[in-house]
Amino acid sequence: MRLNWGMIGGGEGSQIGPAHRLGAQADGLFTFAAAALDADPAKGREYAQRLGVAVDRAYGDWREMLAGERNRENRVDLVTVATPNATHFEITKAFLEAGFHVLCEKPMTMTVEEGEVIVKIAQSSGRICAVNYCYSAYPMVREMRAMVARGGLGRIRLVVANFSHGHHGDAGDADNPRVRWRYDPAMAGVSGQFADCGIHALHMASFITGDEVARLSADFASTIESRVLEDDAMVNFRTAGGTVGRLWTSSVAIGRQHGFDIQVFGETGGIRWASEQPNQVWYTPLGGRTQIMEKGEAGLSDDAARLSRVPIAHPEGFPLAVANIYVDLAAVIRGETRDGLPSAEDGLRSMAAVMAAVESAKAGGAWVDARPPMLR
Amino acid sequence: MRLNWGMIGGGEGSQIGPAHRLGAQADGLFTFAAAALDADPAKGREYAQRLGVAVDRAYGDWREMLAGERNRENRVDLVTVATPNATHFEITKAFLEAGFHVLCEKPMTMTVEEGEVIVKIAQSSGRICAVNYCYSAYPMVREMRAMVARGGLGRIRLVVANFSHGHHGDAGDADNPRVRWRYDPAMAGVSGQFADCGIHALHMASFITGDEVARLSADFASTIESRVLEDDAMVNFRTAGGTVGRLWTSSVAIGRQHGFDIQVFGETGGIRWASEQPNQVWYTPLGGRTQIMEKGEAGLSDDAARLSRVPIAHPEGFPLAVANIYVDLAAVIRGETRDGLPSAEDGLRSMAAVMAAVESAKAGGAWVDARPPMLR
Amino acid sequence: MRLNWGMIGGGEGSQIGPAHRLGAQADGLFTFAAAALDADPAKGREYAQRLGVAVDRAYGDWREMLAGERNRENRVDLVTVATPNATHFEITKAFLEAGFHVLCEKPMTMTVEEGEVIVKIAQSSGRICAVNYCYSAYPMVREMRAMVARGGLGRIRLVVANFSHGHHGDAGDADNPRVRWRYDPAMAGVSGQFADCGIHALHMASFITGDEVARLSADFASTIESRVLEDDAMVNFRTAGGTVGRLWTSSVAIGRQHGFDIQVFGETGGIRWASEQPNQVWYTPLGGRTQIMEKGEAGLSDDAARLSRVPIAHPEGFPLAVANIYVDLAAVIRGETRDGLPSAEDGLRSMAAVMAAVESAKAGGAWVDARPPMLR
Amino acid sequence: MRLNWGMIGGGEGSQIGPAHRLGAQADGLFTFAAAALDADPAKGREYAQRLGVAVDRAYGDWREMLAGERNRENRVDLVTVATPNATHFEITKAFLEAGFHVLCEKPMTMTVEEGEVIVKIAQSSGRICAVNYCYSAYPMVREMRAMVARGGLGRIRLVVANFSHGHHGDAGDADNPRVRWRYDPAMAGVSGQFADCGIHALHMASFITGDEVARLSADFASTIESRVLEDDAMVNFRTAGGTVGRLWTSSVAIGRQHGFDIQVFGETGGIRWASEQPNQVWYTPLGGRTQIMEKGEAGLSDDAARLSRVPIAHPEGFPLAVANIYVDLAAVIRGETRDGLPSAEDGLRSMAAVMAAVESAKAGGAWVDARPPMLR
Repeated sequence: MRLNWGMIGGGEGSQIGPAHRLGAQADGLFTFAAAALDADPAKGREYAQRLGVAVDRAYGDWREMLAGERNRENRVDLVTVATPNATHFEITKAFLEAGFHVLCEKPMTMTVEEGEVIVKIAQSSGRICAVNYCYSAYPMVREMRAMVARGGLGRIRLVVANFSHGHHGDAGDADNPRVRWRYDPAMAGVSGQFADCGIHALHMASFITGDEVARLSADFASTIESRVLEDDAMVNFRTAGGTVGRLWTSSVAIGRQHGFDIQVFGETGGIRWASEQPNQVWYTPLGGRTQIMEKGEAGLSDDAARLSRVPIAHPEGFPLAVANIYVDLAAVIRGETRDGLPSAEDGLRSMAAVMAAVESAKAGGAWVDARPPMLR
Repeated sequence: MRLNWGMIGGGEGSQIGPAHRLGAQADGLFTFAAAALDADPAKGREYAQRLGVAVDRAYGDWREMLAGERNRENRVDLVTVATPNATHFEITKAFLEAGFHVLCEKPMTMTVEEGEVIVKIAQSSGRICAVNYCYSAYPMVREMRAMVARGGLGRIRLVVANFSHGHHGDAGDADNPRVRWRYDPAMAGVSGQFADCGIHALHMASFITGDEVARLSADFASTIESRVLEDDAMVNFRTAGGTVGRLWTSSVAIGRQHGFDIQVFGETGGIRWASEQPNQVWYTPLGGRTQIMEKGEAGLSDDAARLSRVPIAHPEGFPLAVANIYVDLAAVIRGETRDGLPSAEDGLRSMAAVMAAVESAKAGGAWVDARPPMLR
Repeated sequence: MRLNWGMIGGGEGSQIGPAHRLGAQADGLFTFAAAALDADPAKGREYAQRLGVAVDRAYGDWREMLAGERNRENRVDLVTVATPNATHFEITKAFLEAGFHVLCEKPMTMTVEEGEVIVKIAQSSGRICAVNYCYSAYPMVREMRAMVARGGLGRIRLVVANFSHGHHGDAGDADNPRVRWRYDPAMAGVSGQFADCGIHALHMASFITGDEVARLSADFASTIESRVLEDDAMVNFRTAGGTVGRLWTSSVAIGRQHGFDIQVFGETGGIRWASEQPNQVWYTPLGGRTQIMEKGEAGLSDDAARLSRVPIAHPEGFPLAVANIYVDLAAVIRGETRDGLPSAEDGLRSMAAVMAAVESAKAGGAWVDARPPMLR
Repeated sequence: MRLNWGMIGGGEGSQIGPAHRLGAQADGLFTFAAAALDADPAKGREYAQRLGVAVDRAYGDWREMLAGERNRENRVDLVTVATPNATHFEITKAFLEAGFHVLCEKPMTMTVEEGEVIVKIAQSSGRICAVNYCYSAYPMVREMRAMVARGGLGRIRLVVANFSHGHHGDAGDADNPRVRWRYDPAMAGVSGQFADCGIHALHMASFITGDEVARLSADFASTIESRVLEDDAMVNFRTAGGTVGRLWTSSVAIGRQHGFDIQVFGETGGIRWASEQPNQVWYTPLGGRTQIMEKGEAGLSDDAARLSRVPIAHPEGFPLAVANIYVDLAAVIRGETRDGLPSAEDGLRSMAAVMAAVESAKAGGAWVDARPPMLR
């Protein structure tokens, strides 16, 4: 039987809303049963019904939805939180405490302390709190993780991750509301580009290497003068296991569209992946030729094989990476075990890394501990 | 409200089945309401229920499904036919005659005569008979079509299409049932690789240029000796409007994974697209530099914009091209107009082109009329 | 000691002249000792001296040069003929008969009969008559030939070669003298684009497979109406050994800059090479992953290793492919043996293939013998 | 008339020797007249003669060559120094003082103080002391410099340069003499990978932006434990003009062959270039599409046009970038003016940057002045 799914935020015109709805429904695992889609209750109710949600479950806001679903017999099994960043903590906390499983958009919280609260609730309640680091659910990203885990590259020496784009490269955008808030501490918090995109890359580095970022040194720059927060950042780091890390992120890299890519170098080989061509991995064994690994080829790990839907060289893209998060969530809700779902702990680690990077950048690149106190 | 959708064929282990189910459900437009999924009735019923179809609409075969749905109140609005090729005609005909809309996998029929029957039924019944030339529903393929239509390349001089792969390149596969049947006239009909893949490329050439293939000259080869039907073919053609066409297709091109790509050259520019990287078009204006056009960029045609779900440089892949066929079908079923849905006429034209190519190849490359008599 | 080298044609402003001068001098193997560079004797003499040729060997025309060098003690060891096409035969013949080695630009002659004359003279005189199919001297092209020769791909089933560009895509160029003559039978002979570029691709197909083109079927088109000769051609062929060939060439493919590439598919693998990225070969073993082979990597054939000058991933380009022709010529002139130098026989075969393609195209694609009578 | 050229170092088996000999001779500008090629005098003399140098100018060592050439009438116009790094200073100094023009391999010196000595001698003597930052002589690198200089990208905000390879990625190479010395302070000095490759990237960043690196912060790592010096480094920097810089260099990036690439982002556009595909630049104007600029296209800067030899899309590679350094040297020796030749000042700046990076890395990434005292 299908599971019931509800969504908070992601209303009409939202960028991420469609990806979640597609993600939840694409594989026929969830029925879109309840929603509170918009800050404007009337618009949210109307849009939910237009998307097929029954009138009595098309809610005006999340509190109404919590009240309406809480004691319902066929209540939603999973709630996706895709509201503005500052509200993630409160909503996620409330739904977890009410016993719902939650998939929260990133960032999970705005502070480390809030993150620790969520982790504790998730741990004590036994509810899932997943965070949507969806790039980790691409089949070939899972394959890289599996390669590293089975020792296919030997000890990992170095990981180099980039997440750069140029969509905020126009200084004339100073008054564009879609852009401006990201560099305004009142709305975005302590970090701009690193908190927005960098943490995806940092999560990916940890995810693939199976290792934790232990300490870091950051260089932040606001290359457009009107910006308070950084639009370009370089973060050097070391993992607990001693791997060297380099992470560059930028929003003024005009010509880079979605330049999220990662390279991992070990004792016996190197691999490379790019989000704009996500169905391949370039793998070079020490002393050998570079090989192009393809999603769907024979011999991939179970995880990579399981999360691919169509044959080799038939590309699958971003929305289906999001769908893979839902595939794994459905399995876990049903009691199966899935390794790789991004967790509340991952959300907390990201927040701690953001704080550490801000602190380091202010201190001229001093090396600081990147781990949340709770997980040290 | 969602439309109801039913599927025939595409059972467990099928390659194309998952793409259709994802395509129909991804955007929340169709409810998977009825199915006859497998040649083995029991397996088909069981699998359909596992996928969420109600027990009374999980049918044992297509005749049972036709009987069961025919007079049902909330009967399926659309039936997808994804059974073995030789059965497409019979099933499609039956459902069309019963007033259902049909999406048929390619090839629509095994003969030109059958194709003409389907076209007539579709025309007289007012029912939609679409054929799943799904590559035409990629946003950037629609963009190419729009560019040509608005004269962006001037008169089209030349179109060069390839569809080559190497997945049948192993001579040792002579006994592999997944491969062997394609080269056996008893099962595959008169053509192997051209009928299987070449017609996708031929459809694409017509689709983008908005022009009809009028005549052709073919060279077929069975490069693996045990094969009766061709595993490699070259087809030169001319459109009604005088465009020169070159089409190469192969299944022994080891190293090509899914080498479906197309180049269109006009008086004032050229464009290039490849199915393995479907979110870009390379466009060169006469006398200018090559530009990389991106799905999701500003200023694309309505059609390209409408059929994309996530921002620029977030890749969308094959399953969502299939989903786009369903997006357009839902719109047409609801009474809207959509240009670009592959029609029964397209299915008929493909079949005529297959027959023409076979005839030409047998006659040493003689030029023959490629059009179905009914549409000349 | 360095060999002495002379050049006929290739004067100031010529496209190919600089490549020959660089090719002869780059590796310190030849001294540029004599020249007749220009149709205008005075300009030719002046330019030769400017390039370092002594005044008494800066000739006004080829006859003067022949007379001057013929009985000279340190006469030139090698003469390069880079004059307008229609003069190649006469000059090459004269110098061969006078006992000089010759490197002739393509096409070697304008007719098959002339080609046969040259072959006979070369054979009887023991002089080298090489033709500048310089692409065959790229290290990685030599590597492909070596792979095929040692059976690394098994029997070759299929070869697909393209040589397409868009530099003649402007219909407004009808009066541009650099373009117009190529499509004018009075100046270009019987064929336009196929004779200009296609024969490079055809030579390459034979060169890599080590097999001769036996028969062919051609489709020619003049996509710009004012042209008499073809600007786009498709040639299907079969080699003596039974390999299937596909060759597309075009000069109206706007956006293709120098689209000369080749794919070779055998029983146990496939390879791919492109002239715009000439230092790599993409190799896929049957059932395996695509591997990127690099110029300069360990384990290449002697020929590929010998003809590369700088380490792996330091690109070498077109002028050094020309230089490689001179490297091999110097060796052969000194009495060493070199396999792979394009010969007068190759020049003759190209001319026969041009004639065959013209004949076939006129006969609606009929299959015709592509071999010169003398070499059947 | 041709200039006379002499070479010190670069004997048989050397990697860089052939590139210099080709570079000097390819365009017919220099005659290879004198040489002291090898640490073993007899081998050096023999090899020089084999390469065409007269017996009396085939010297046993550089002192003998200095003595022999000093007062000779047709003495060499230019001396290339391609000996082991630690000897560059002494030899360059001696030849400059004797009035020869010098092209020195990088690094010009082993200390800042030595560098300042060379700069002073070059300035006072009026002799050219060029340093072989040859990548700066690629036509498309010159084009990027010209684009920036004419304001084509607006103020430059950010430059991101990488020079990474994996050729020292084998820990088993600890005893390989070709590798080991680079990480041994006794032989390589204070820095390994940054001094070897990083300074090429740093020079390029300054070269293209036309701006000086003012201060930097470095993170060095020896990812292979037996190494004392770094095999991986990240350097953040700021130019005098306020541009943000990111520079990553590595020798353990297995799978990267010659990963030298650079991206420059300004207010109104971004550009990208990679040394493995050096004939193109990817250019994106703010708000526009990415365009592929090609060496040889119409409208390039004079410098880019002048340093290209063959038409568009005919690749030119590394040896001809070296040759371009000689092209410019010949012009300057003849009294013409050339902007862009890497100078002794550039060599000095590199050495200062190495020292600064070492100091910063030791101080945990502290920001330090990167400029040589003499040029502050």
